[in-house]
Amino acid sequence: MFKQVTIIGAGLIGSSIARAAREIKGLDTLVGFDQNQQAAARLQDLNLFDWLAPSLEEAVKDADLTIICTPIGAFQQVATRIAPHLKAGSILSDVGSCKLSMLERIAPLLPAGVMCIPAHPIAGTEHSGPDAGFAELFQDRYCILTPPADADQRAVQKLAAFWEAMGSRIEIMDAAHHDRVLAITSHLPHAIAYALVRTAADLEDQLKAEKVGDQALIHSGEVMKFSAGGFRDFTRIANSNPIMWRDVFLENKAPVLEMLGRFTEDLIKLQRLIRFGDGKALEKWFYETKSIRSGIEALNQGGTFIPTEKKTNEKSDES
Amino acid sequence: MFKQVTIIGAGLIGSSIARAAREIKGLDTLVGFDQNQQAAARLQDLNLFDWLAPSLEEAVKDADLTIICTPIGAFQQVATRIAPHLKAGSILSDVGSCKLSMLERIAPLLPAGVMCIPAHPIAGTEHSGPDAGFAELFQDRYCILTPPADADQRAVQKLAAFWEAMGSRIEIMDAAHHDRVLAITSHLPHAIAYALVRTAADLEDQLKAEKVGDQALIHSGEVMKFSAGGFRDFTRIANSNPIMWRDVFLENKAPVLEMLGRFTEDLIKLQRLIRFGDGKALEKWFYETKSIRSGIEALNQGGTFIPTEKKTNEKSDES
Repeated sequence: MFKQVTIIGAGLIGSSIARAAREIKGLDTLVGFDQNQQAAARLQDLNLFDWLAPSLEEAVKDADLTIICTPIGAFQQVATRIAPHLKAGSILSDVGSCKLSMLERIAPLLPAGVMCIPAHPIAGTEHSGPDAGFAELFQDRYCILTPPADADQRAVQKLAAFWEAMGSRIEIMDAAHHDRVLAITSHLPHAIAYALVRTAADLEDQLKAEKVGDQALIHSGEVMKFSAGGFRDFTRIANSNPIMWRDVFLENKAPVLEMLGRFTEDLIKLQRLIRFGDGKALEKWFYETKSIRSGIEALNQGGTFIPTEKKTNEKSDES
Repeated sequence: MFKQVTIIGAGLIGSSIARAAREIKGLDTLVGFDQNQQAAARLQDLNLFDWLAPSLEEAVKDADLTIICTPIGAFQQVATRIAPHLKAGSILSDVGSCKLSMLERIAPLLPAGVMCIPAHPIAGTEHSGPDAGFAELFQDRYCILTPPADADQRAVQKLAAFWEAMGSRIEIMDAAHHDRVLAITSHLPHAIAYALVRTAADLEDQLKAEKVGDQALIHSGEVMKFSAGGFRDFTRIANSNPIMWRDVFLENKAPVLEMLGRFTEDLIKLQRLIRFGDGKALEKWFYETKSIRSGIEALNQGGTFIPTEKKTNEKSDES
């Protein structure tokens, strides 16, 4: 096991790694760094790390494994600064949602003897910051590693063992393949949720002023009030970290645009069935989508475990 | 309070009413009817009703309040059969997701002295059938009543008191207004979820056969495996009752088509920002959508309480 692990950027994911890695045998020292002063102060109070480093350089210089957990947009800047200080034989990894850019833009910055092995835990909540993390976040969730073709297999296995020790199931795949798969399972759903919440907000702004006879078409607050019929689930997704998602869409542009095109075709097809009142086709469509859900539940990927003390005062979402 | 309440169709909502109404003081007799033989047999075992009527006619003849809880597509047939047997002075209500049709098509079938007061509890899960129901489903959820303009106000108050006794918050509005509001907060999100799950399923079918070099573009099962990144929330919504949703889209066609048009415009706008790499505009957009979520949480509408024993063996979704 790695003797020293350094986490750069301890938000939801970074702080969850710190919490989960505490229990790993053989891991002596957990070092944290967050350039955001508020987050750093909070990390001090939370006491998640053995040491909070005062600078990026000091944070990484003795690390056997360094994991960048900042938004993707900051990767290049962070990597440029830490590269000269990384120890020979150590591994640089990350937890970003797009993997090709890590290999294409970050790996070339590293000195000889430092291995770049990108990782992506498919886990998260819509909350951000060091308080949002929890040790069980990776339990039974997949973690995808996208090592370069010439990667040292022992290093890959060592990183895999680190994630397995935190409860993850490991998948190894090509970075470009990862970016296509995640475009459909994660990036497209987020784009749709952000779009729908915008539609509802604009509709409310526009319509509360317009009247049909004596009645406003919609009243202020009604979209929020009656959101339990489906809309609220989208608002939860659209509550995710704005900077992180801005960077994901910019970084994984081509696969995301392809998936958006495919989705729009399907939505227009569904719209046409509704317009022409084709009940038979609608019923068939809605039965077919049920089987996908069954498959996800069979893989035990239907929900995320959140420890009780992490729950907000709102009632628990059903699973 | 109503002395006898009759529930026609005891699926998720009907059986939840039966469970919640048990505790209401002054309500002497709960009568149930379900024309589906399997559901009726299950209801017998669950013992939710004081009496399971052998026919629609017998179910309603002594009821002070009859609530139709079948899919909307069956309303006309049910109403036609029960209308001659409804007691003078009694109320006919429902729990359907579209309200205008109830007043336009069902109310005219009723004999003089029977009042039609449509209701719509904004509550539910993606599960169906008598086993899916639970007493707390309506707790703190809104229930919208859409009485006709000339409704007897005492009857409206009586129905409101019935829903309040089950934990609901009451809103009274015009039926056409209801249908527009729900088109955005419920029907549009469901249409989008059904479309996205179809996109993912078709993509997987198509791409697992296609190759780039040696690699399949996507492998069988990957969409399900890595669904935790956002997709799984859509599959949950798209797991809802197919017959119910077919009927909703057919019944509330015009408002749903309008909302689909608005949403598509916003999605295309977002797509264009991604294509042109406009990070500033994306960031602004994603910050703005966060405030909507805060409003929903402030109204305590962020999640649905599910009692522990109802949870499936999958882990609890976070709130």
